[in-house]
Amino acid sequence: MPLPSPLSEPVLLLDEARVRRNLRRMAERAAAAGVRLRPHFKTHQSHAVGRWCRELGVEAITVSSLTMAEYFAADGWRDITLAFPFHPGMRDRVEALTGRIALGILLADPLALDGVRFSTRVDVWLKIDVGSHRTGFAPEDLDGLRALAATLVGRDDIRLRGLLAHAGHSYDARGAEEIAAVRDETLALLGRLREALAAVSGPLELSVGDTPTCSTADAFPGVDEIRPGNYVFYDLSQWRIGACGVEDIAVAMACPVAARHPARGELVVHGGAVHFSKDVMQLDGQRVFGLAVEATPDGWGALRPEIRLVGLSQEHGIVAAPADVIARARPGDTLLFLPVHSCLTADAMGRYLTLTGESVGMMG
Amino acid sequence: MPLPSPLSEPVLLLDEARVRRNLRRMAERAAAAGVRLRPHFKTHQSHAVGRWCRELGVEAITVSSLTMAEYFAADGWRDITLAFPFHPGMRDRVEALTGRIALGILLADPLALDGVRFSTRVDVWLKIDVGSHRTGFAPEDLDGLRALAATLVGRDDIRLRGLLAHAGHSYDARGAEEIAAVRDETLALLGRLREALAAVSGPLELSVGDTPTCSTADAFPGVDEIRPGNYVFYDLSQWRIGACGVEDIAVAMACPVAARHPARGELVVHGGAVHFSKDVMQLDGQRVFGLAVEATPDGWGALRPEIRLVGLSQEHGIVAAPADVIARARPGDTLLFLPVHSCLTADAMGRYLTLTGESVGMMG
Repeated sequence: MPLPSPLSEPVLLLDEARVRRNLRRMAERAAAAGVRLRPHFKTHQSHAVGRWCRELGVEAITVSSLTMAEYFAADGWRDITLAFPFHPGMRDRVEALTGRIALGILLADPLALDGVRFSTRVDVWLKIDVGSHRTGFAPEDLDGLRALAATLVGRDDIRLRGLLAHAGHSYDARGAEEIAAVRDETLALLGRLREALAAVSGPLELSVGDTPTCSTADAFPGVDEIRPGNYVFYDLSQWRIGACGVEDIAVAMACPVAARHPARGELVVHGGAVHFSKDVMQLDGQRVFGLAVEATPDGWGALRPEIRLVGLSQEHGIVAAPADVIARARPGDTLLFLPVHSCLTADAMGRYLTLTGESVGMMG
Repeated sequence: MPLPSPLSEPVLLLDEARVRRNLRRMAERAAAAGVRLRPHFKTHQSHAVGRWCRELGVEAITVSSLTMAEYFAADGWRDITLAFPFHPGMRDRVEALTGRIALGILLADPLALDGVRFSTRVDVWLKIDVGSHRTGFAPEDLDGLRALAATLVGRDDIRLRGLLAHAGHSYDARGAEEIAAVRDETLALLGRLREALAAVSGPLELSVGDTPTCSTADAFPGVDEIRPGNYVFYDLSQWRIGACGVEDIAVAMACPVAARHPARGELVVHGGAVHFSKDVMQLDGQRVFGLAVEATPDGWGALRPEIRLVGLSQEHGIVAAPADVIARARPGDTLLFLPVHSCLTADAMGRYLTLTGESVGMMG
């Protein structure tokens, strides 16, 4: 690996081969299932990684903020869904984008488009709460949804494009069977809702997307597009759900060892909340912020789950490790950790280093 | 307030008057106690805010990373303690800095300086673990510390400057009495240790610093310098500890309302983990990521603890609020939230907006 040795500060490594393999598999899965792949770019937030998607034929993308939509529009993306609920404060920047690209927006509140007009027609997706209860319309509120659809189809500055859902509760699933159950319920619910609204709404597309279901399903009956995002890198959360193997996780944080604390079975590394974010998972009854992997000559290999990040402050990471690991460790050594949540880790770092030594930039 | 209304995305507001008041009070407290104030700049990470400190006579600062040391050295700071344990990977960048400024480094592992030489003399502080068990030497290991001190005083490329501690366990305290107990124990322990090492080490300075003890103590017997950082902004964590009043908290996140969910007593705002970070506190048995404050014509006022951020995903914030608040809310409204941990929130945002509409930049 082309890491400077020893490292002066933490570096987020990106294994380009793993990323491209993850991207290719999902593209093949979408093609085989006959659905449009509209990947969510919030995970990588990078022009360079976006271009790797484009090389695989991806033309339509998803983003989670206006700033991200503008960032990717600037790199030539012409079909973007802004998958965060539209509110009137977004109007002027949406309007500026619709002059340049095909933009889809999300509606999650019946009042959000009141008093808002666009000069170019904007695609509107109704956000449906299929069970994660973050946001979206309750699917059982058929009267409300029909009334809303009637209002929307009567407007000439928008096009009611479809129903969009994020089955975020798939993150609570464990294993293929539980993930499949979430997908089946989601698709059945959206299919019924589309039918129930059809007389008012006309034909509607269905857009679904969360990495666990998209990574494990072979078919998406009735669905027009999928919007997975995290699959570009995966992470320990996805591994725990059963959405990926450890060998699919495509980013790892390289952290210098700062101090040894053999008496308490711990090392301190440079690698804290401003690097990993504070997303946490439970493992063997322990709060874990990352798990170590073996360094190899050209990247990283096997998981070392006995070497784990168990505490983070702003810059410090507390690593629990077996006595022999601590006995061999020296200040300035490098340890590699897989993150719990790659989206937040990437956002915190703002930059990647590939295993061939190239710096890959991000938004912001 | 000069906020664009409605807001398109979250903005981190900075109340300059509150910041300057916080800075002034700590400067006065340090002067009255006869200790050097070496504020930790990891909280604000901003040249502009650093200059407000300089206007109050601050000449020496603390930082938590090499990048931060370089950033502030570039703005004319000439006396910087890098309060993260030195390891050999830091050597070349430390060496480059010592050519330009008076740099102090931390030693938390007896091997960290082995095989490392500097061409200009560097101040070394021994990091002492006074009870937070993050890192530092165990104060009861007198033999080890004496041997280490003997090695260090024998080197001509470093100067053993003093003992440095961060009583991070003061964050578990509640109220002035418990905070004072942490400070008293810390100072007694460091004083005894300095005495016990004196025959080997020669005179040593004592450096302590955590915002709770520095904000509430009137005296620091035996101490040479204090290094509080968070006090520049404070936050809900400090308020809970009893280190500040709500009226001292000097940053607030302005978040647009995206959707209302009256049936479950919640609003969804734009304001997620990439804005607040995921630091959390318990309040009335609930996990809370921020509490609302009233907007006023020129900033913000009273706490509205019944309006609370109870969930964060990447961009979404889930706000629990009373029915009447939800009934009055509209998409595009702005809600203001005090953060749980201002250091991580500032780091996540990377920029401030003052109440007079000026954009204040940060590192990175």
